[in-house]
Amino acid sequence: MSEFIKVTYKTVAKDLHKKAESIAVGMTVGSWTDLPLAKQELLAPYLGKVESVHIQQEKDGLQYGTISINYPSNNSTPDIPALLTTVFGKLSMDGRIKLIDISFPPSFLRQFPGPKFGIEGVRSLLGVNGRPLLMSIFKSCLGLPLSDLETQFAAQIEGGVDMVKDDEIFFVDDRAPLNERLQAYNKIIVEAGRPILYAANLTGPVHQLIDKAKYAIENGANCLLLNVLPYGFDILQRLAADPDITVPLMAHPAMAGAYYSAEDYGIASPLLLGTLMRAAGADIILYPSPYGSVALNRADALHVAENIRSDNGVHKTAFPVPSAGIHPGLVPNLYNDFGTDVIVNAGGGIHGHPGGAADGGRAFRAAIDAVISGTSLAEAAQTNQPLARALEKWGGA
Amino acid sequence: MSEFIKVTYKTVAKDLHKKAESIAVGMTVGSWTDLPLAKQELLAPYLGKVESVHIQQEKDGLQYGTISINYPSNNSTPDIPALLTTVFGKLSMDGRIKLIDISFPPSFLRQFPGPKFGIEGVRSLLGVNGRPLLMSIFKSCLGLPLSDLETQFAAQIEGGVDMVKDDEIFFVDDRAPLNERLQAYNKIIVEAGRPILYAANLTGPVHQLIDKAKYAIENGANCLLLNVLPYGFDILQRLAADPDITVPLMAHPAMAGAYYSAEDYGIASPLLLGTLMRAAGADIILYPSPYGSVALNRADALHVAENIRSDNGVHKTAFPVPSAGIHPGLVPNLYNDFGTDVIVNAGGGIHGHPGGAADGGRAFRAAIDAVISGTSLAEAAQTNQPLARALEKWGGA
Repeated sequence: MSEFIKVTYKTVAKDLHKKAESIAVGMTVGSWTDLPLAKQELLAPYLGKVESVHIQQEKDGLQYGTISINYPSNNSTPDIPALLTTVFGKLSMDGRIKLIDISFPPSFLRQFPGPKFGIEGVRSLLGVNGRPLLMSIFKSCLGLPLSDLETQFAAQIEGGVDMVKDDEIFFVDDRAPLNERLQAYNKIIVEAGRPILYAANLTGPVHQLIDKAKYAIENGANCLLLNVLPYGFDILQRLAADPDITVPLMAHPAMAGAYYSAEDYGIASPLLLGTLMRAAGADIILYPSPYGSVALNRADALHVAENIRSDNGVHKTAFPVPSAGIHPGLVPNLYNDFGTDVIVNAGGGIHGHPGGAADGGRAFRAAIDAVISGTSLAEAAQTNQPLARALEKWGGA
Repeated sequence: MSEFIKVTYKTVAKDLHKKAESIAVGMTVGSWTDLPLAKQELLAPYLGKVESVHIQQEKDGLQYGTISINYPSNNSTPDIPALLTTVFGKLSMDGRIKLIDISFPPSFLRQFPGPKFGIEGVRSLLGVNGRPLLMSIFKSCLGLPLSDLETQFAAQIEGGVDMVKDDEIFFVDDRAPLNERLQAYNKIIVEAGRPILYAANLTGPVHQLIDKAKYAIENGANCLLLNVLPYGFDILQRLAADPDITVPLMAHPAMAGAYYSAEDYGIASPLLLGTLMRAAGADIILYPSPYGSVALNRADALHVAENIRSDNGVHKTAFPVPSAGIHPGLVPNLYNDFGTDVIVNAGGGIHGHPGGAADGGRAFRAAIDAVISGTSLAEAAQTNQPLARALEKWGGA
């Protein structure tokens, strides 16, 4: 019994129906109508089929719209390099076409690990329920000695953040090697007396990353950050599938803009940063927020969250982390747009607080408490000086 | 002593000089002017510097052009995930910006393996000099039983091709497993009595690909095909750097269109498929030809070849394989554009020959001999029936 992976493209052609047919055949068995009957029988289980064609506009003899192709799930092994090559490999180079969406049959999706912890698992590690989590980013990491990073880390913790992550540009760490960071930060976490996740940037040769992750975990890492796209989706999947990787995996979207930004080319963000990241096993997924300067459009930003938090019957949900340009005044927007199961993540919005990083954290925690209790930020700020100063600086009351 | 990686972007801003400054600082040490002097001294070796700004157009208050930033080579480890994250990770998501070019100091480039065989090494394996090589692609692979693939392989060899490659969409090969293919094809190669390379598609979990490649080589593989972008550049680099991988590595450009196609986003093809593929260790690089329907623009196609065949003082050169839509009538164009050190690669142009795949190969070989000896195809076709029929079908005499 065949099952199908449904793949949707946005494209343009003189005849979209004809183009859809040519993709369905060309990306699977290569040719069809000219095959002898015996060969057709042999190849039928591998033949792609046109599911639908939606013409959205006709102009100057061209049809603009979307087409959906059903690929037999047996055409690809259950890994993202094979999947993307199968449905978009050479097609990506064939004129104006953007990969918009993929939906999987449960039998295929089940072969992907999905998040090991997911939203519930991460909450349970932190012991925090009923409110958005708060994460902070080091102001910068590259080139700083351990003592500076320790000071930064302590200030962030003091402000009440639930998680801290390394900067993703942190490959050369000879001034503060991973093991020394883990030791220093874990001491601060123990002193804080509450669970805190520190996402350490996992770097190195791709074929050694699993061993390196295990070594980091043995040395105290309780969360790992990965630049998934530069390293390739597959290593995320293999980390997630490994039973010895016993900590949440945080996916950074570095390089994602090279894929999703163009209107007519590449891979749409809800698929790239949503569906695929979740299937491959990210527990926590950073991506551009719909606010601030490094912004994703609002519909796509919400769609990413939907793709990683909806019940797909197979995998755990993952935490959306709409990032960049976040300050305490934006917490009501984040809460209205993304609800409770979101991670509020800030760099400049923490470190740039007039009272320092600790007050930055306090301002965010006060803003989160306010939205949860239905209080306006202006009202909350009357009894919370750090929040008042944040609103004064960044607005948003 | 600092050395710099020079990175060029195409972008747009109200003030390109200001944008360049903000990238130079923002993508390296994070902030600068507000740092205390002692911290500036500490971070100086990591600070990016603006190399140049070229304003190409000013319109509606915006400046369009290119900017070049010098990144200290010590900011990145010598691997492509780290490099791309460092120079384009978050920047890729920051508005209209395309990564155009990277040039490396020799000290940094030397830490990449580059091609193990290169043009000379591949020629030496095949014992063929003084003419473009000829490669053919299986008509299709997916779903076909070994006996069909054997027949296809034998016909391609009979026509005189130097190399045959698997289709890149060939992950599920249970009807013709790799080891059985290697055994069957190698028997045909031995019978042919001349060296022929067969590029077997390397597939599987990324952390097992090195072992899988070694196993394939032990079982007779003499060339390996890799979908580099879906798997990630790093595994190509690790394969190339491994002394036990003793066969040429062929890079397929699957997914490349998602990066290079947009005018204002992504990564330019001469960098993506040229510079980076060569540094990471591809001996043979497929990419869209400037002819046919799946086409790269001519300037970029030539630029890819230039980036992989120029003397960079560090690495061997790699073979360009401008592919898609190639038929014998295009051989003069290929020769004029790319010279002798090119691989003529065809699928439909071989299998679609009216006399079958063997005649398809013969037609290409005759066309190659003609251009080398300065004979026109029309003249050569007078004494070569397969070439005459090919020109009749596809034109180009």
